[in-house]
Amino acid sequence: MTSHGQAAWELLLPAAAAPARRRGRALQEALRDAVRSGRLAPGTRLPSSRALAADLGVSRGLVTEAYEQLTAEGYLRSDRGAGTWVGEAARGRPGGTPARGGAGTPAPGRGTGTAGGSGPATRARAADARGTGDGTHARGGAGPHARGAGAPRVRVDFRPGTPDLSLFPRSAWSAAQRAVLARLPHPSLGYPDPRGLPELREALAALLTRRRGVVADPERLVVCSGVAQASTLLGFVLRARGHGAIGVEDPGSPEHGRLFSSTGLDTLWLPLDGEGLRPEPLAASGVRAVVVTPSHQFPSGISWSAERRAALLAWARAVDGHVLEDDYDGDFRYDRAPVGALQGLDPERVVYAGSVSKSLAPGLRLGWMLVPGELLAEVVERKRTMDLGNPVLDQAVLAEFVTRGAYDRQLRRCQRAYRERRDALLAALAEHLPGTEVSGIAAGLHVIARVPGRYGPTERFLARAAAAGVVLRPLEEYGTARPGDGDVRLVIGYAHLAPSVVAAGIRAVAAAVGRG
Amino acid sequence: MTSHGQAAWELLLPAAAAPARRRGRALQEALRDAVRSGRLAPGTRLPSSRALAADLGVSRGLVTEAYEQLTAEGYLRSDRGAGTWVGEAARGRPGGTPARGGAGTPAPGRGTGTAGGSGPATRARAADARGTGDGTHARGGAGPHARGAGAPRVRVDFRPGTPDLSLFPRSAWSAAQRAVLARLPHPSLGYPDPRGLPELREALAALLTRRRGVVADPERLVVCSGVAQASTLLGFVLRARGHGAIGVEDPGSPEHGRLFSSTGLDTLWLPLDGEGLRPEPLAASGVRAVVVTPSHQFPSGISWSAERRAALLAWARAVDGHVLEDDYDGDFRYDRAPVGALQGLDPERVVYAGSVSKSLAPGLRLGWMLVPGELLAEVVERKRTMDLGNPVLDQAVLAEFVTRGAYDRQLRRCQRAYRERRDALLAALAEHLPGTEVSGIAAGLHVIARVPGRYGPTERFLARAAAAGVVLRPLEEYGTARPGDGDVRLVIGYAHLAPSVVAAGIRAVAAAVGRG
Repeated sequence: MTSHGQAAWELLLPAAAAPARRRGRALQEALRDAVRSGRLAPGTRLPSSRALAADLGVSRGLVTEAYEQLTAEGYLRSDRGAGTWVGEAARGRPGGTPARGGAGTPAPGRGTGTAGGSGPATRARAADARGTGDGTHARGGAGPHARGAGAPRVRVDFRPGTPDLSLFPRSAWSAAQRAVLARLPHPSLGYPDPRGLPELREALAALLTRRRGVVADPERLVVCSGVAQASTLLGFVLRARGHGAIGVEDPGSPEHGRLFSSTGLDTLWLPLDGEGLRPEPLAASGVRAVVVTPSHQFPSGISWSAERRAALLAWARAVDGHVLEDDYDGDFRYDRAPVGALQGLDPERVVYAGSVSKSLAPGLRLGWMLVPGELLAEVVERKRTMDLGNPVLDQAVLAEFVTRGAYDRQLRRCQRAYRERRDALLAALAEHLPGTEVSGIAAGLHVIARVPGRYGPTERFLARAAAAGVVLRPLEEYGTARPGDGDVRLVIGYAHLAPSVVAAGIRAVAAAVGRG
Repeated sequence: MTSHGQAAWELLLPAAAAPARRRGRALQEALRDAVRSGRLAPGTRLPSSRALAADLGVSRGLVTEAYEQLTAEGYLRSDRGAGTWVGEAARGRPGGTPARGGAGTPAPGRGTGTAGGSGPATRARAADARGTGDGTHARGGAGPHARGAGAPRVRVDFRPGTPDLSLFPRSAWSAAQRAVLARLPHPSLGYPDPRGLPELREALAALLTRRRGVVADPERLVVCSGVAQASTLLGFVLRARGHGAIGVEDPGSPEHGRLFSSTGLDTLWLPLDGEGLRPEPLAASGVRAVVVTPSHQFPSGISWSAERRAALLAWARAVDGHVLEDDYDGDFRYDRAPVGALQGLDPERVVYAGSVSKSLAPGLRLGWMLVPGELLAEVVERKRTMDLGNPVLDQAVLAEFVTRGAYDRQLRRCQRAYRERRDALLAALAEHLPGTEVSGIAAGLHVIARVPGRYGPTERFLARAAAAGVVLRPLEEYGTARPGDGDVRLVIGYAHLAPSVVAAGIRAVAAAVGRG
């Protein structure tokens, strides 16, 4: 063992003894737990990857990967060449060791302003923005086959927010329904626990701990009707506690504004840059609550940097505030391991919300939230008065699905399908609209495409695409930024379209807009 | 044809030609429609039952029954011996013929005050009352087999509000689930219409028109999570329109208070007598909205008189107000045809709400509301921000159930079972607690029992019953009335208990409380 002391690293030994295919993940989980529990105190220097690999008898690559992953998530921080330390971000420890710069401290002046210079005082257009009519990241209006009066037949609808509904596992779901109705005890059909069916809360807590790195106590998990209802529930609770406004990411989902507005809260656009929310406008905004999408920001597609994650949590502690983490597609990451959820760093400040809307079907209206202890009773009472609790049968079926592994299989199936579609989109854009820059491609069900100005301007581009039967949504509908450089910025949803349809759609757009 | 003119009665001829077993109902429906549509104007005198029967070629009994039924519902009014007229109550016709006394005019001074002299100024205890934790008419807390620490085993739980969950038609539901998953088009799995699945709204509109005599346009039907959510939805809408309070029946369901309080509305107890809400306290209360249970008042069990129905609607029109009709067990009437819903008389003033909680299972969280046109957009938008709409699969299954007749079969099955249990309860009370007066027996899942004072006082009675393992709920938990006559008033739910259990429970109580 190294000079860093055997005691501190012993807790990693069981992970190192895990079967080879699960060893990397086990190591990451053990390390995360050690930081969270305080067994690895903030500021502790970690052994070099070479030394720890030797101590544990694992490959150095596994350790490097674990360090990188946990650094990305904000548990560790790393000064290139100088080593790796335990960060300050995990859990709130008001009396803990002082921050050593970097993680745990807001990084002033780092905002690069890619989202434009709009300040926090800009009142959100969210509540007024063009309606999507659907989920917080859902497209609205006409479906892929709808047509307006006299309009050409819509052949391809690239608006984001809908998964491929044909991937819903009908026969497996049907079998699970049958099994559930055969075994569910009679009392389970009575008035439900407003928090949700106990067996589902247990199953989801285990799933989310494993997949998303959250701290998931089944007692703090509230089953709800998707992230939209999680937003409304939290909005009412914050409003009753005296909040007047909540911050939302700019660019972000206009639907958040409508949902919070229904609870009496104003929404305030807060500017984003390439790393996450810019700290100064956030601090100056006066809000004590924000909604964020750190794993795969909607719509920009960035993954928040570790520094910004830490800075957000430091802010939340400083203002005695709360963060709603909308983990709307944290499950779909294509090229590396998913970044663990923000909630894992501070479950007392972060309300974590997710759903099956992208993995199974939005029509199930089934989601969950992990609620800080301080807010739990109020959220549950609000859920109770809103609908007495979610319907039990779908809950029991989902519990069956999760515990029997069918949910993981479904996620893998979707992931394969969506990666293939993303690749088809990237190839088509490169071929038919050369010069287009695409970002946010590492995860999720959509990308941001910045099409060169020679194909523009935006309005003409959209009109010509629409005339060719292709519906596209411009980035400007999701925020206040107007870069004014003439480029055409689009939010392109691809997950609901077969690869050939994706390619045909982009080809049709290119033909319609010409070569500039 | 009679002197009343052929034109007016022609519209009843098709009903008279219906097959014998449906003829009575067809006649009632045709008559109701004629009143509603204005083809039979308010004040029109109807032919004698003998004359109309002769004209139509049907038995006189059918006509008498139709007159009685529609008089009970408020469409007609009848002066004993002097004839039958079309009432003023149906639809709002501000410029219509003046009321001829009776129906359409509040009947001052008719209140008999059985619910005690509490005035409308009495602030509702509703929000503070002992929690039921469940639906608006649900019992809460421990189930039939729960036990407290050190408490004797609960053998029989007579608290009202839960149907017999073992009557849930599992195999039929399972078959319908399978059928639904086999045929549902993919887009139906997407973000739902917040009003509900179109096929369910169609099916429910037809069902409710047929069974409950409502005016049910599928476009005005909103599927929701039971009557509890209907209350919350309406509460938010009224609050946003400037209402500060809503009236509730005294006695009534304490849960209404908690639900409306969550929307920012105060609740005001309004005294009931043997016919319905007393008109003067209602008029003096200053509220412009009330929640009522006219078909089988909860908990008193009375069916509102035709005069009071008419008076309530006249009040609503006069104050430009609204009525929430909670038709919580309108489907369960044992000894005669159900009284048609209040909503049928004035669909622009009455919000009608019902659910499958008593007919199938509360755990389905599936109900409906019929919303006046003026409120519709606001209710739908509130439903959208609350949860985006109900889950689609259960909706599709219920639509299948309703359209294939399985729902009617289920209602008949429950009705038979519950009537048998009610009879067992009445017999047991008569045998073991002689002198007990029972009311509200004609319908529903509970009765009111007034046990002679010699078995009391109430507290000792309840304590002794509890010690014997029988949970009973006193009427005083449901309102402000305290008659002070020493009798023990109980709300006894029986529907969830097998007849032998009902009998054993009452026997155990009698043994525990002694013969007074």
